[in-house]
Amino acid sequence: MGTLSTVADSVAGDAGARRMHERATFEHFVADVRARVDARLAWWLGARVAEARARGTDIAAVADAVRQLVLRGGKRMRAALLAAAYEGCKGQGGAEAVAPAGAALELLQAYLLAHDDWMDGDDVRRGGPSVPAMMRACFGKQEGTVPATGRGQNLIDAASVLAGDLAAAWALQSILELTLAPARVVLAVRELGRVEEDVVHGQVLDVCARAADAYDVEAAYALKTASYTVRCPIIMGARLAGADDAQVVALTAFAEPLGIAFQLRDDVLGTFGDAHAMGKPLGSDLRKGKRTALVVEAMRNPRARELLAGVLGRVEATDDEIAAAVAGIQESGARARVEERIATLVCESRTALDRTHLTPSGLVLLGQAVVVLTERDR
Amino acid sequence: MGTLSTVADSVAGDAGARRMHERATFEHFVADVRARVDARLAWWLGARVAEARARGTDIAAVADAVRQLVLRGGKRMRAALLAAAYEGCKGQGGAEAVAPAGAALELLQAYLLAHDDWMDGDDVRRGGPSVPAMMRACFGKQEGTVPATGRGQNLIDAASVLAGDLAAAWALQSILELTLAPARVVLAVRELGRVEEDVVHGQVLDVCARAADAYDVEAAYALKTASYTVRCPIIMGARLAGADDAQVVALTAFAEPLGIAFQLRDDVLGTFGDAHAMGKPLGSDLRKGKRTALVVEAMRNPRARELLAGVLGRVEATDDEIAAAVAGIQESGARARVEERIATLVCESRTALDRTHLTPSGLVLLGQAVVVLTERDR
Repeated sequence: MGTLSTVADSVAGDAGARRMHERATFEHFVADVRARVDARLAWWLGARVAEARARGTDIAAVADAVRQLVLRGGKRMRAALLAAAYEGCKGQGGAEAVAPAGAALELLQAYLLAHDDWMDGDDVRRGGPSVPAMMRACFGKQEGTVPATGRGQNLIDAASVLAGDLAAAWALQSILELTLAPARVVLAVRELGRVEEDVVHGQVLDVCARAADAYDVEAAYALKTASYTVRCPIIMGARLAGADDAQVVALTAFAEPLGIAFQLRDDVLGTFGDAHAMGKPLGSDLRKGKRTALVVEAMRNPRARELLAGVLGRVEATDDEIAAAVAGIQESGARARVEERIATLVCESRTALDRTHLTPSGLVLLGQAVVVLTERDR
Repeated sequence: MGTLSTVADSVAGDAGARRMHERATFEHFVADVRARVDARLAWWLGARVAEARARGTDIAAVADAVRQLVLRGGKRMRAALLAAAYEGCKGQGGAEAVAPAGAALELLQAYLLAHDDWMDGDDVRRGGPSVPAMMRACFGKQEGTVPATGRGQNLIDAASVLAGDLAAAWALQSILELTLAPARVVLAVRELGRVEEDVVHGQVLDVCARAADAYDVEAAYALKTASYTVRCPIIMGARLAGADDAQVVALTAFAEPLGIAFQLRDDVLGTFGDAHAMGKPLGSDLRKGKRTALVVEAMRNPRARELLAGVLGRVEATDDEIAAAVAGIQESGARARVEERIATLVCESRTALDRTHLTPSGLVLLGQAVVVLTERDR
């Protein structure tokens, strides 16, 4: 027994040490990608804003709002997933070779955030003003002097949408600065075109869902979040490394459940997590009427449904009402069911990962990505 | 004298016959391109809308609005310019080889029109409902049930912007279906990324100009219209044919003045032309407060300035007030000055065309394009 126990401890100790090593490897990799992508974005966006300034101060204001949003934020996790898949598929030249694509993913996100925050009326993003809030600060003074056609949009709405449009154009420009084989670049840009369509589809589902009751929340997550957060980065990285279609299919089977699990974790943290760490007040999704997975699950319970009815989509809901609704979600068992669903998706994703033919370092990096994306606390 | 006169008549007759022949060649070419691009758009958009429908009826509604707008309209002049430049630079396979790029230009325009019409509050486009008007017809009934956050946008605004975003994604997808050499495709898609940025810059100038007085109208036209109407199609076509940088520079010198002349002709027709042929009521630009080249020119004249002040940006301006303002523009000499400017730009463009190294048929086609784009009556 004593001997067996020691062996077991030793095995456990080895496994623990291995996990710590893998975690450190991943963190080092992510930090390296972030440094490269951040450096690239800083000079690249500086050049774009300078060009914009030469064309006019209003243009510069719109361009600079995109620059600020992009540089303010982010763990650059999408760029890291792209670089990890690239490395795992034997891509040459390391993270630097795919930095223009990583930067493109950040610009793609800026485009989506600009339009999203405008649609949702969100003023805060990444701990600073959202794009619409920046546009209000720039153009708010002029608003009163815009000819009132009685039908057209005001300058702030137009500029917010145009800022997103500009970020989308920049994402395309950035990815086309890749110096890899053109045939691979074309396949990677196809992923960009595909994900842009998916995200619009998902956003339509999301926006319309707030007016509807029946709603396939995972279908919307797959399109609106998982697509550009996990699937697109990984498939882009694989395509840029010259992965064949079989490998792309295998990686898609890995990426899709992982992306949904990531968003479900986001839901749980947004409702039960630390508001400060999440960077947005708890209950903000409820007040906005968002049909998160937790809400959809909890609505099946009459008591929770009643509590939620009082807060969903009501900005004026009190903190006490929010707290009661959150407790109702917990007691309905919705939280436990979502946690269970996350575990199932993670299992699917890990099984699919084993069926890919990645390099050992690629397997370690994407295996760690599963942990980081689904077990995070912010 | 009699003999000389006959020779002159004969020369003039030959020149006339040549012009008629060139015109017929051009019209035949444009009709061929239009048939190919229309056929492609019809099946391609049908497939996209079917995919959208499988994801939900709301998604299908947004996708179908884009499809309707694209199929409803247009002379496909941009696709024809692209194919003419391709042929002129010795591209192989004719118009069919570049049809996915021609279709992409149409989708790009749908994206721009959707966002433009939403910003301007325009309900009519190409003789039918604009994208925002279609979205109002679809989602108007639901609007009252959207949770009123007091800050977010309503479903109609969101769906109008999302329809434009979808068309942009489709433009990218379409151009990536080209089966030409990937290195050429990459260069062509770069033009797409560049023109998307230019158009946003131009739109910012345009939207902000309505609140401002000083305004470089040609700079805005170069970015907002000429860029995607003339320069981008021609450079894309050249790049797809493998044209070198010198040829691209020469073609840019041809395309840029032509694009501005095209927009100036549009201004003249929009103010003095046949409302029915133009497809929009005369005075609509004035009522919307648009600073067209004519308006900017006329504002230098105190009398015209006074008349314009009474109608610019005033939807409620009467037809008599509009007629007086239009007469004021004419009398100020603004119309004559704009016509003179068109003639100068056309001359610049023709001179530049002579310095390109196009095939004889390319020279005929682009030479005719100058006539069609700047001497049109609708």
